[in-house]
Amino acid sequence: MYQNHPREKARIALAGAGCRCMGILPLLLEMEDVRVTAVCDPYPDKAQAAARLAEEAYGEPIAVFTDHKQMLAQENIDGVVICSSWATHCRIAIDAMRAGKYAAIECGGGASLEELWELVRTQQETGVPCMAMENCCYDLKELTVLNMIKQGLFGELVHVEGGYGHDLREEVSFGRENRHYRFDNYMHRNGELYPGHAIGPIAKYLNINRGNRMVSLVSMASKSAGLHAYLKEKKGDEYDATNAPWAEGDIVQTMIRCAGGETILLTHDTTLPRYYSRFGCVRGTKGMWQEEENRVFFDGEGEGETWAHAPKPFDPLLEKYKHPLWKEFEKEGVKGTHGGIDWLVLRALVESMLAGTDCPTDVYDAASWMAVTVLSEKSIATGSAPVAFPDFTSGEWIHRKPYLRGKYCLDEVCTDFFEEDAPAPEGE
Amino acid sequence: MYQNHPREKARIALAGAGCRCMGILPLLLEMEDVRVTAVCDPYPDKAQAAARLAEEAYGEPIAVFTDHKQMLAQENIDGVVICSSWATHCRIAIDAMRAGKYAAIECGGGASLEELWELVRTQQETGVPCMAMENCCYDLKELTVLNMIKQGLFGELVHVEGGYGHDLREEVSFGRENRHYRFDNYMHRNGELYPGHAIGPIAKYLNINRGNRMVSLVSMASKSAGLHAYLKEKKGDEYDATNAPWAEGDIVQTMIRCAGGETILLTHDTTLPRYYSRFGCVRGTKGMWQEEENRVFFDGEGEGETWAHAPKPFDPLLEKYKHPLWKEFEKEGVKGTHGGIDWLVLRALVESMLAGTDCPTDVYDAASWMAVTVLSEKSIATGSAPVAFPDFTSGEWIHRKPYLRGKYCLDEVCTDFFEEDAPAPEGE
Repeated sequence: MYQNHPREKARIALAGAGCRCMGILPLLLEMEDVRVTAVCDPYPDKAQAAARLAEEAYGEPIAVFTDHKQMLAQENIDGVVICSSWATHCRIAIDAMRAGKYAAIECGGGASLEELWELVRTQQETGVPCMAMENCCYDLKELTVLNMIKQGLFGELVHVEGGYGHDLREEVSFGRENRHYRFDNYMHRNGELYPGHAIGPIAKYLNINRGNRMVSLVSMASKSAGLHAYLKEKKGDEYDATNAPWAEGDIVQTMIRCAGGETILLTHDTTLPRYYSRFGCVRGTKGMWQEEENRVFFDGEGEGETWAHAPKPFDPLLEKYKHPLWKEFEKEGVKGTHGGIDWLVLRALVESMLAGTDCPTDVYDAASWMAVTVLSEKSIATGSAPVAFPDFTSGEWIHRKPYLRGKYCLDEVCTDFFEEDAPAPEGE
Repeated sequence: MYQNHPREKARIALAGAGCRCMGILPLLLEMEDVRVTAVCDPYPDKAQAAARLAEEAYGEPIAVFTDHKQMLAQENIDGVVICSSWATHCRIAIDAMRAGKYAAIECGGGASLEELWELVRTQQETGVPCMAMENCCYDLKELTVLNMIKQGLFGELVHVEGGYGHDLREEVSFGRENRHYRFDNYMHRNGELYPGHAIGPIAKYLNINRGNRMVSLVSMASKSAGLHAYLKEKKGDEYDATNAPWAEGDIVQTMIRCAGGETILLTHDTTLPRYYSRFGCVRGTKGMWQEEENRVFFDGEGEGETWAHAPKPFDPLLEKYKHPLWKEFEKEGVKGTHGGIDWLVLRALVESMLAGTDCPTDVYDAASWMAVTVLSEKSIATGSAPVAFPDFTSGEWIHRKPYLRGKYCLDEVCTDFFEEDAPAPEGE
């Protein structure tokens, strides 16, 4: 258990001043127990734009850097939110921990197992917390489902699905003009590039790295046709990226088997026309939840008429099994971007920093979630061969206990921190 | 093109007198251009029960056998509907073709590639048609989607999903008492045991064996927990099957890559609580269809607000793009089990037999669809290794043309056979 000194203010720097920074910076500036002290980005104009936001809020300038190492050398930083391009997340997190600063890694996949091992070893050597900043772990739906799982409503878990369905054709294909890293990633890589929104909540459902672990993975990618078709219509054949060899398949699906025998299906689906979805699905011996259809089904309902077994709406259960964190959040007033989840994940970081403790997600979460990208690329590169999942805990997963500290914990539903009682058990 | 003589009556025998036989036999008995002439089953009581149904309809007995070879030696049989246990489908189909009788294979997976090759070689040597009796190819939804695909509504196809979601825990776990072959199959095999309902329509969407083919496959199975939990509740721990080592995983998922770069996801999901579903999903560069949600989404709708892109109901399109076969069927009065699809697939067989022609599905369809089961077992047995898909056409798939004969054809939407005009093109 990390025991740095408690703080009255969490002094936070941002590494990377792109879209994500501009989304979360206003939330941090709003928090009275946070002081944003620095920002860095290799593009000076982006860093300056972020700094201007901070200056408007504080009435005085904050430090601006183009090099993250220079920023990390500053004294007045307790932690760094890393919202830079995907390929730089690990490097910056490692440097942050070495500088003694909380490393809070925003969503994005890894690029090599070697760098993920270095991330883990650096955390172990320095003892500095490293948090996987997966906002979807704190979504109302996912936290409610976590609560239902922990209360046994689905029985023994058998299979879980999730993914990232988001039409990003505009963001990706015009990413070069907008200096967005997605352009290069989609042009040159083929894999599950963005697993966090799915694997984050799922890993917590399945106790990954704490009694369970991901053992093997296999991925398959469809052809890449969506960006060609999109650019052909928007820019015509003369535009160089229209007929460029986009590497990323339009649909990348990944199957993972866990030590407990559970299977996971992930879907990465961002370059064909579609509406937003995270494909959430939980299957157990007693019931199921389906996010897209917003419904549940429990055993015994409609028994004797298997053909006609009918699911029912999720909404009443969303109310009945609402996670205590969300009850409190709604009582105090939901705020922040993406329906409140950005606020919650930042608070999880900030409150850990203020207490001087570990965070609700740790370096093993970060490494194993980011490893999905690396392993998926490996599998696709070798014709959908199965790849073994590294055990970043080096055997400790068998005995590692849930992290129960703080009301933002995701390993159990901790109710001690809330005024209200625990949600009513089933049948009450 | 098979050119046996046209017939006034199709004389049909049934191999296997279990549930499926008792479902389709009444339909055949109702058809004035069909004469059911024989039935066989290794269980004499089952064969007699089927024969009694025929005798009630015809007022005279039909021939009853316990051995399919004895039945196939009879003169008064033009074709055999093979609705026996899965493992016997290929053997009986091979023997039927050798006896000069149409071999119509009901749903079910294969057990070895060797027998599937023998099926193909026997058809090639005898010239006798072999039909894959996949009723779901003739479902209103699937035929409408086929029509929409052929009219280009989804653009270039990229990814298709399907499966078999059906709570069969009662049928499987009490299958020993009921002499149902599922008991043994689930106890001893682990794979995509029942791919037909999904891969049949999908193969037609993707022109498999006629310009495209399935190239590689990989499967993963979850643990088997559903039947244990179910039997424990229904029969208790003392019942021997409760804690038996059921081999079949509760959720088996299979990813297939096609020569055209399209991917297919199949889900076999029959031993956990759930409602019925076939998981239909079609993704292209211009739009998507989702069966479970009964909705569609087309490019450009909600443009500029990617987050809010909203799907719309499928029902209006189901009307607008209704396949001409279903328009006629509804006009004449939908009849038969499973919402009419059993009637249609039987009529596809019978009308081919009456004309003395090939059938809308052929031995390459049958072999490749049944091969999914074999390859899925292989992949799971080797830790989700990718397996190469055999090319049963031996290279002919590149140049094979759509089979356009008859109004039941599934390779194109043939409108010549219907009184009405083709469905209105988009925008009209």
